[in-house]
Amino acid sequence: MAEVRRDPVTNGWVIIATERAARPHDFHVSRGERSTEFCPFCEGNEDRTPPEITATRADGTAPDSPGWQVRVVPNKFPALRPDSAFGAERRGLYESVGGFGAHEVIIETPRHFMSPTEMATRDFELVLRMYRQRAHALSADERLSYVLIFKNVGEVAGASIEHTHSQLIAVPVMPKRVHEEMRCCEESYGSHGRCLFCEILEQELQERERVVLETEHFVVLSPFAARFPFEMWVMPKEHSLHFMDLSDVGAADLAGALQEALARLEVCLKDPPYNYAIHTAPVGGAEVRCFHWHIELMPRVTRVAGFEWGTGFYINPMEPERAAEFLRDVPQRKVEEKIGSASVRERAGD
Amino acid sequence: MAEVRRDPVTNGWVIIATERAARPHDFHVSRGERSTEFCPFCEGNEDRTPPEITATRADGTAPDSPGWQVRVVPNKFPALRPDSAFGAERRGLYESVGGFGAHEVIIETPRHFMSPTEMATRDFELVLRMYRQRAHALSADERLSYVLIFKNVGEVAGASIEHTHSQLIAVPVMPKRVHEEMRCCEESYGSHGRCLFCEILEQELQERERVVLETEHFVVLSPFAARFPFEMWVMPKEHSLHFMDLSDVGAADLAGALQEALARLEVCLKDPPYNYAIHTAPVGGAEVRCFHWHIELMPRVTRVAGFEWGTGFYINPMEPERAAEFLRDVPQRKVEEKIGSASVRERAGD
Repeated sequence: MAEVRRDPVTNGWVIIATERAARPHDFHVSRGERSTEFCPFCEGNEDRTPPEITATRADGTAPDSPGWQVRVVPNKFPALRPDSAFGAERRGLYESVGGFGAHEVIIETPRHFMSPTEMATRDFELVLRMYRQRAHALSADERLSYVLIFKNVGEVAGASIEHTHSQLIAVPVMPKRVHEEMRCCEESYGSHGRCLFCEILEQELQERERVVLETEHFVVLSPFAARFPFEMWVMPKEHSLHFMDLSDVGAADLAGALQEALARLEVCLKDPPYNYAIHTAPVGGAEVRCFHWHIELMPRVTRVAGFEWGTGFYINPMEPERAAEFLRDVPQRKVEEKIGSASVRERAGD
Repeated sequence: MAEVRRDPVTNGWVIIATERAARPHDFHVSRGERSTEFCPFCEGNEDRTPPEITATRADGTAPDSPGWQVRVVPNKFPALRPDSAFGAERRGLYESVGGFGAHEVIIETPRHFMSPTEMATRDFELVLRMYRQRAHALSADERLSYVLIFKNVGEVAGASIEHTHSQLIAVPVMPKRVHEEMRCCEESYGSHGRCLFCEILEQELQERERVVLETEHFVVLSPFAARFPFEMWVMPKEHSLHFMDLSDVGAADLAGALQEALARLEVCLKDPPYNYAIHTAPVGGAEVRCFHWHIELMPRVTRVAGFEWGTGFYINPMEPERAAEFLRDVPQRKVEEKIGSASVRERAGD
């Protein structure tokens, strides 16, 4: 029998269909074949991207040359630009603002990997530190309201280049989903003085049926009202408004937690396309009474159709509790084989 | 230069990218080849669907036999069911309701057409009357909060059967997007005593740059903050809360307006996949001070990626004003050729 669940962080509803006991192989969607085409993101091809904004590089190497580990460049076809107009305009009922903002690409590794699980954990940690560095740098600009860092893996998830990379879009207005999450969080805080996400963590760690894994500082769980099969949230245990306040110790722990979540997903669903996005508090002048940053990881294995677009209501054919069980049940050995396997193989001359 | 526009009916934001002067052929996505497989929705195969709920049929023909023009059956894999439990449950922070509701399929024609444009306009009118009939019937059940009628055309838009059909899902809770639209509408009504959609219509009919077509009772326009390239809204000129209050005269006019909008889209984008959904006021006990029903038509020619899922913010690479121009510029002759062409050809023995 189906169940209709309310997502406490947005007040959206999800129909959790439980009649057909779906299994992971019911959701197989290919990420696409590894391409042999020229890749502008590989080391040595630095002249094929716009000039770099910043990079994690070996001492003595010049910008836009080899020797980097993580490299940030402007998006070649930016949605928003730092040199565009800022300021609102009204035309009758309608309101718009100029195209001011930023759209950057974070190239996560000099090597042609397709997913962060192929990287060594300490290299993935450098990526997370770079996320933090760029979020910090952009949050200094008071004209910006929000910095969104997200990742598309696989063509159906919107990736046009397969070399593993993330994107950052900084916008001058508050995104709707963030606004919803903040409203729910603030209402909850206002009514009983506690952070909604902290309360969720408490209940989840007690019940444990939706917890996929736990590290010293993070919990990965399948949310109660997951919109997508095998959706996961990565949440810091300690209350924290901003992703950019992540400590170095936290970054190292998060690299392991996120990589393990991705590895379990990739083993379970055979390398599905996916998106993840960091949900963090707004920047700029916004007064934030309560928020709790987290990462939402969304496998793209079902189609979103007229019902979802029409209502904002989702149908998820996989119970979150069952998804969590499948993800937990991936043997540790397979997780370890998955993580950093390409780099290990390559170092061994395989 | 890009522009960031606020959607007045949801307060969501859309980045309208205008740097690259996109043209319709930049958005070509195939709807899929016409399949030759067995079709359970064709006349003569009535025993291959669950027993019909109702149908528009010739006098003297029996249910679940040939002789119908529009046929309504339960979805074979229903998301919600009329015989499921109704009632809320709380588990700590979490809230859910049983799987009570309805999930129906409206088979629009006995013939194997793939889009309503292939039907004669008077036959499509029967489909709209059936929408109205089912919305009426279900709205009598006070346990239901909302009746959503929507359509998926093409595999990437979520259609699993190509024979032209619509779906109806009736839910016991209020969908988030409807709630947002209602809130915006009510706020606007509260602050200056007029319906937001009526005001939009007034401004659009004055400016005309986003109007695609106009009939006696309806306006089809490309919305100011369109989320998708070539998105259109079909709006009744006269203020009306509920789709189910559509008159017979209105149904005839709407059949023509919606068919023409679809024909212009299909000529322009070469038969793209699309969804449409009827946005109407809630049913059940909800007190509605102001709403204005309309149909949202969403071509599925761009991919929704991490940014959109992460923020509820959209990037639309086609200015609504340019989209409206391309749609208006489709020659009337091509529109007429498109509408009912299959039925005309077939009647002529072609």
